Amino acid sequence: MDKKVIEKKSLSKVIQRRLKESNKTNYGRILLICGSRSFGGAAIMATKAAVYSGAGLVTLASDSANRTALLSTVPEAMFIDYSNKEKLLSAIEKSNVILIGSGLEDSDFSLALLKNVFNNIQQKQILIIDGTALSMIGKYHLSIPKNPTTVLTPHQGEWQRISGLSISEQNPAQNYKKMSALQNDFLVLKSSATEIYSITNTKEYGQLNIGGPYQATGGMGDTLAGLISGFMGQFHDNNLLTIQAAVYLHSYIANLLSQNNYVTLPTKIADQIPLIMKTFIQNEFD
Amino acid sequence: MDKKVIEKKSLSKVIQRRLKESNKTNYGRILLICGSRSFGGAAIMATKAAVYSGAGLVTLASDSANRTALLSTVPEAMFIDYSNKEKLLSAIEKSNVILIGSGLEDSDFSLALLKNVFNNIQQKQILIIDGTALSMIGKYHLSIPKNPTTVLTPHQGEWQRISGLSISEQNPAQNYKKMSALQNDFLVLKSSATEIYSITNTKEYGQLNIGGPYQATGGMGDTLAGLISGFMGQFHDNNLLTIQAAVYLHSYIANLLSQNNYVTLPTKIADQIPLIMKTFIQNEFD
Amino acid sequence: MDKKVIEKKSLSKVIQRRLKESNKTNYGRILLICGSRSFGGAAIMATKAAVYSGAGLVTLASDSANRTALLSTVPEAMFIDYSNKEKLLSAIEKSNVILIGSGLEDSDFSLALLKNVFNNIQQKQILIIDGTALSMIGKYHLSIPKNPTTVLTPHQGEWQRISGLSISEQNPAQNYKKMSALQNDFLVLKSSATEIYSITNTKEYGQLNIGGPYQATGGMGDTLAGLISGFMGQFHDNNLLTIQAAVYLHSYIANLLSQNNYVTLPTKIADQIPLIMKTFIQNEFD
Amino acid sequence: MDKKVIEKKSLSKVIQRRLKESNKTNYGRILLICGSRSFGGAAIMATKAAVYSGAGLVTLASDSANRTALLSTVPEAMFIDYSNKEKLLSAIEKSNVILIGSGLEDSDFSLALLKNVFNNIQQKQILIIDGTALSMIGKYHLSIPKNPTTVLTPHQGEWQRISGLSISEQNPAQNYKKMSALQNDFLVLKSSATEIYSITNTKEYGQLNIGGPYQATGGMGDTLAGLISGFMGQFHDNNLLTIQAAVYLHSYIANLLSQNNYVTLPTKIADQIPLIMKTFIQNEFD
Repeated sequence: MDKKVIEKKSLSKVIQRRLKESNKTNYGRILLICGSRSFGGAAIMATKAAVYSGAGLVTLASDSANRTALLSTVPEAMFIDYSNKEKLLSAIEKSNVILIGSGLEDSDFSLALLKNVFNNIQQKQILIIDGTALSMIGKYHLSIPKNPTTVLTPHQGEWQRISGLSISEQNPAQNYKKMSALQNDFLVLKSSATEIYSITNTKEYGQLNIGGPYQATGGMGDTLAGLISGFMGQFHDNNLLTIQAAVYLHSYIANLLSQNNYVTLPTKIADQIPLIMKTFIQNEFD
Repeated sequence: MDKKVIEKKSLSKVIQRRLKESNKTNYGRILLICGSRSFGGAAIMATKAAVYSGAGLVTLASDSANRTALLSTVPEAMFIDYSNKEKLLSAIEKSNVILIGSGLEDSDFSLALLKNVFNNIQQKQILIIDGTALSMIGKYHLSIPKNPTTVLTPHQGEWQRISGLSISEQNPAQNYKKMSALQNDFLVLKSSATEIYSITNTKEYGQLNIGGPYQATGGMGDTLAGLISGFMGQFHDNNLLTIQAAVYLHSYIANLLSQNNYVTLPTKIADQIPLIMKTFIQNEFD
Repeated sequence: MDKKVIEKKSLSKVIQRRLKESNKTNYGRILLICGSRSFGGAAIMATKAAVYSGAGLVTLASDSANRTALLSTVPEAMFIDYSNKEKLLSAIEKSNVILIGSGLEDSDFSLALLKNVFNNIQQKQILIIDGTALSMIGKYHLSIPKNPTTVLTPHQGEWQRISGLSISEQNPAQNYKKMSALQNDFLVLKSSATEIYSITNTKEYGQLNIGGPYQATGGMGDTLAGLISGFMGQFHDNNLLTIQAAVYLHSYIANLLSQNNYVTLPTKIADQIPLIMKTFIQNEFD
Repeated sequence: MDKKVIEKKSLSKVIQRRLKESNKTNYGRILLICGSRSFGGAAIMATKAAVYSGAGLVTLASDSANRTALLSTVPEAMFIDYSNKEKLLSAIEKSNVILIGSGLEDSDFSLALLKNVFNNIQQKQILIIDGTALSMIGKYHLSIPKNPTTVLTPHQGEWQRISGLSISEQNPAQNYKKMSALQNDFLVLKSSATEIYSITNTKEYGQLNIGGPYQATGGMGDTLAGLISGFMGQFHDNNLLTIQAAVYLHSYIANLLSQNNYVTLPTKIADQIPLIMKTFIQNEFD
């Protein structure tokens, strides 16, 4: 098994100069099904990261209690109440990328939501599963849908709950074995040395060697999940490379901020996304 | 048919030194009838652009669910619940410029709202029609009112729905023919090379040669619509030139931001409006 | 009648070095009775100006619909629902300075509110009357209470409604005559050349020669009213000088911002208050 | 009795380089039981300070009316409605540090809340009692729980209400005597020369010689309480030193801001926390 260090140049490869003749529909329709009454901030942070990454159209489906805070913070995003089944189904159908799980509560409602998404997602769509949705897959023995491209973004404890592998058992070979059993395409296994796995090449995996404990604060993972969803809505050449670039960028910005900050708050990372992305392409219209 | 490139100097011509002896009522009473439960951010972004352009008095009429987010973001604006018919009628009557459509939902309520505005607007008023209101005009075969000065701000798909012209059929001669049939005064046809038409001179049209795909993100059009409304509330010498200046300024700021940003978020464009407008006039009180 | 130009040095005279042995209760308990469902922003802008001026304890009494936007913007302030009579009475009793009127609606409720304040205000308190409360005094023939120190902050149209003087009749002699009839202590008559009157010296009045039409935008007066209330809560040596200093500071900051901004938004003026106040005292603890 | 000046170097001693192999659960689970309908801002300011200090997981339990403003301001924090007894108990159980009192109202509900916390807090937990909770301890003759480590953060008036000592009677010997009677571990007695007491060493106490009257404004104490809670969630070597460092940092930032600001607003102090904390450690990953 080869360990490949995820490189900074993945960012230059992935972040594209946009075509002059393009419009917002070319840059993804992202649907985030995130947040709850207790964890509303997770939804807001994920949505902010998606919008700030340049995604074309971003919709948050959440508890209606999170609507005003989202609009106050990220008016660029649209909002639907995820208890409105008709609107939710319509949004699922129209989206290219769906992120589910950041800031959900473990509840009957969330379980129905998860099943609804799993039953209605289609082949060409990308499904990113984060946070509570991951724990619920383990707890309720849900099957990850086969049709869409799936990305799981667990930390080690969440991966244990899905895979049954204790943290000490979580090695690349075992991880690939479980991914295969789960029919999962991509795994972002978060830790102080985050690893990225792609089922299409089980002979290697990527490891992040940037980032640090200044990122150890609530909301960091929600922001990462939103950033991955924004990248996958825009950059389609190579999904693995796109995921690697998003993960790298997230920690790269944190690392930059950590030069001057003891803790690198998730919302401050999101603020920097458009600026730092720009540094990875040459001036477009010079 | 002459194509005239919209020039930067339109901004110096339009943005006036304000008269010392003036007050906020000299700079327009703008009413924005925008936003809905799903698309509240559109209303907020349009309102922010109108306020930041210097409009004297700006009122957002929207779903009451958007009230708090507006006040948190742009306390300079006033708010009315657009389901309050009496207040809405009174606001329509008192306004110089009315923008309708950004972020409305296609619904019976919106249709009634649109008819209400079309029936009550008066001769000296300016009516800007954006977003969903444009699609609804096509879908429900509504007639654009004849009395006010009308500005339509469709992107190519919306123009297709109103005019019946497919995107490939949308050429200047056809566009003017449809404007004439619709009795529409000004058309801002948004694309990667936005065009501006004035029914008073059907021998030429303007084209924007600034801006770029960094603007391809949700909310860009809402911000433009708000900026046009703010400009038309303040600058009355030449409506065509005023519209051209607003459209130019919007992309000019985006272009400036794009030097350092991969994507130029609408709210960040609005933040720059007072600063960049200032650069187009000499110091007032030197 | 002597016209005295209000001078920049009024600021150095008024803005005091704070005593080392002091606490927030030394810097005023300000109660703002402002805002309504339509004009919530006015309340927020006035409160922000009071807090940013350094007032010790600031409470906004307003429609409950304005609560969340206030907390999102100025968490330093406290909030009470002004329909809660008991809490409002208690707040009136405890305050040193009461500002009423910015952003109120002309309604039966507001009229009751105004009467409630006028009936319960006490001798040592300062009462600042702004915005709609001024128009309502004229419309409903209310008497300004005699006991507290009263400051009226009308623009010329509002002064006409109270005083019965048309704008062309508003000259210093007539203004003093009306103030005397109204038993009003201080008048800030806002215009492009704002005038300040004190009933204790009817042989002269002050005039502002700073500021400009970049201030002609919604919310400017609300911010001024809040700033005056914050100053009067802190600086007690000479009420006239304190009012002059607040009025001067408001336009002085606007003037500074106008070097780089076409329009000087009220919330941006408030942001600068702590910074610009500091420039008028020498370093406290050098 | 020895008076020891609290020194700047306490900050370098307390603020630790984080271990590379760590995650957010290593940096504290902080529960703030703060705020009410009238004093929502206190809860938001305390929460912001805790989050910005680097605490791993921060939850605000408050009146549901404060939810949206919190999420708009500090989406990194989680929220529970403190009238939900089950959720509150569960949160109390899971937390390392509990702060109660900033911005509570004196009410039956708050009294029940206080008793609930006092009855359910456990031995290894840290309990910080601030604001109204302090006054209520005095008024209702509540006993401070013995099991947890307790920190009281009264100003002199609040200390009088708990201890029965008039402000002139509040000297170190008396303060220790009362702490002993109350079975209180740490006392932060706020004034223009804040003192810090630790029951483990009653022969000395610390005094702050930094800070100034620019801090005399509403919300300053709430921010301090939040900052202490964030520090105690992260830094465990020496509780006294940790408290001293938090108190020093709060006034140190205020002092820095006061170079350019007449008043140092609490929310502006919180903004600086990550930046100024960083200056007290050497670069972690050089």
